[in-house]
Amino acid sequence: MEVVIPFDDRRPKTRLAPVLDEPERRTFARTMLRDVVDTLRHIDREPTILANDNVDVDAAVVIDERPLTDAVNGVLDDGGEVAIIMADLALATPASLQRLFQASADVVLAPGLGGGTNAVVVSHPTFRVDYHGASIRDHRRIAREVDASRATIDSFRLALDIDEPSDLAELLLHGRGASVDWLRDRGFTVTTTDGRVGVER
Amino acid sequence: MEVVIPFDDRRPKTRLAPVLDEPERRTFARTMLRDVVDTLRHIDREPTILANDNVDVDAAVVIDERPLTDAVNGVLDDGGEVAIIMADLALATPASLQRLFQASADVVLAPGLGGGTNAVVVSHPTFRVDYHGASIRDHRRIAREVDASRATIDSFRLALDIDEPSDLAELLLHGRGASVDWLRDRGFTVTTTDGRVGVER
Repeated sequence: MEVVIPFDDRRPKTRLAPVLDEPERRTFARTMLRDVVDTLRHIDREPTILANDNVDVDAAVVIDERPLTDAVNGVLDDGGEVAIIMADLALATPASLQRLFQASADVVLAPGLGGGTNAVVVSHPTFRVDYHGASIRDHRRIAREVDASRATIDSFRLALDIDEPSDLAELLLHGRGASVDWLRDRGFTVTTTDGRVGVER
Repeated sequence: MEVVIPFDDRRPKTRLAPVLDEPERRTFARTMLRDVVDTLRHIDREPTILANDNVDVDAAVVIDERPLTDAVNGVLDDGGEVAIIMADLALATPASLQRLFQASADVVLAPGLGGGTNAVVVSHPTFRVDYHGASIRDHRRIAREVDASRATIDSFRLALDIDEPSDLAELLLHGRGASVDWLRDRGFTVTTTDGRVGVER
């Protein structure tokens, strides 16, 4: 199985702008990427980074300047079994990723919070991705249209891509690895209110 | 095993006030409660509702007017194996709850989005809950303090309690059962933007 991690090195993590400046967002995005790579290697999966620019990471990098959906579908066009895993799954653990790889279906989906698709394993010749909008809904529909069997991974760790300031609280509460250390080193702590937790720095 | 669902029938779902008026919030909260009860019965678990007021539901109801933490600890004081499951887990499925019940540890925790504890199975004589603040962190600490073994359920469906308007989008995207039908009947649909999905009515 080919394991591919798309990575936007040009404008990474713009929704974290309220709490991290541009150089910090760039460093944090790369730190999360390295965490995902390390977690995959723990379970003997060697990923390829599908980047829109050259990125400094200790892994194979393929550069494709097209938008995310087109770049990923370019990989799927080559055929074979392919896993697409988002680079900001800093909460992923070996166990959560094992569940993804061990599921048996033409299309295995790990939904993301907010309608996204945080990981997908494709072993169907004509299934293609569409990351615009509520992609999980589109991916279910596309799987139906091409008559692909479908499995869904019910994982909090795979559902939580780190995109928004409130996600940093989840990382601080549940994370291990370099990304959470990086956040702690920069003074981020969890704040508690009546509702869900937040972060302060 | 005793299965207990705490339920606040006095001021239910106040954080949904931006999108549902007070009678609607009351009806929606009870509809979610019934979904959770039904899902438990699918796997042959018969819950007791631990309510702060009399509630119209087809299940055994125990009234305890104390705050949530005190009421739940009152149940734990009686000893035996007890599962505490939040009433707003409208995304819970038989499979996700089975994972909770099948885990083997003195304290089995299902973390909620935003630091909460959406379900816990306690089979340790001195473990007690504390639902204030980032309760998942407190529950880990308390388990350590009483020397209880601990397991964590990595489930998106158990992590997503329906508390805030954005959670309704998750329910519309991933839910089944009466709660999601109720939302659709009231005209709620998923909206897509550049980031995570939302709802509109």
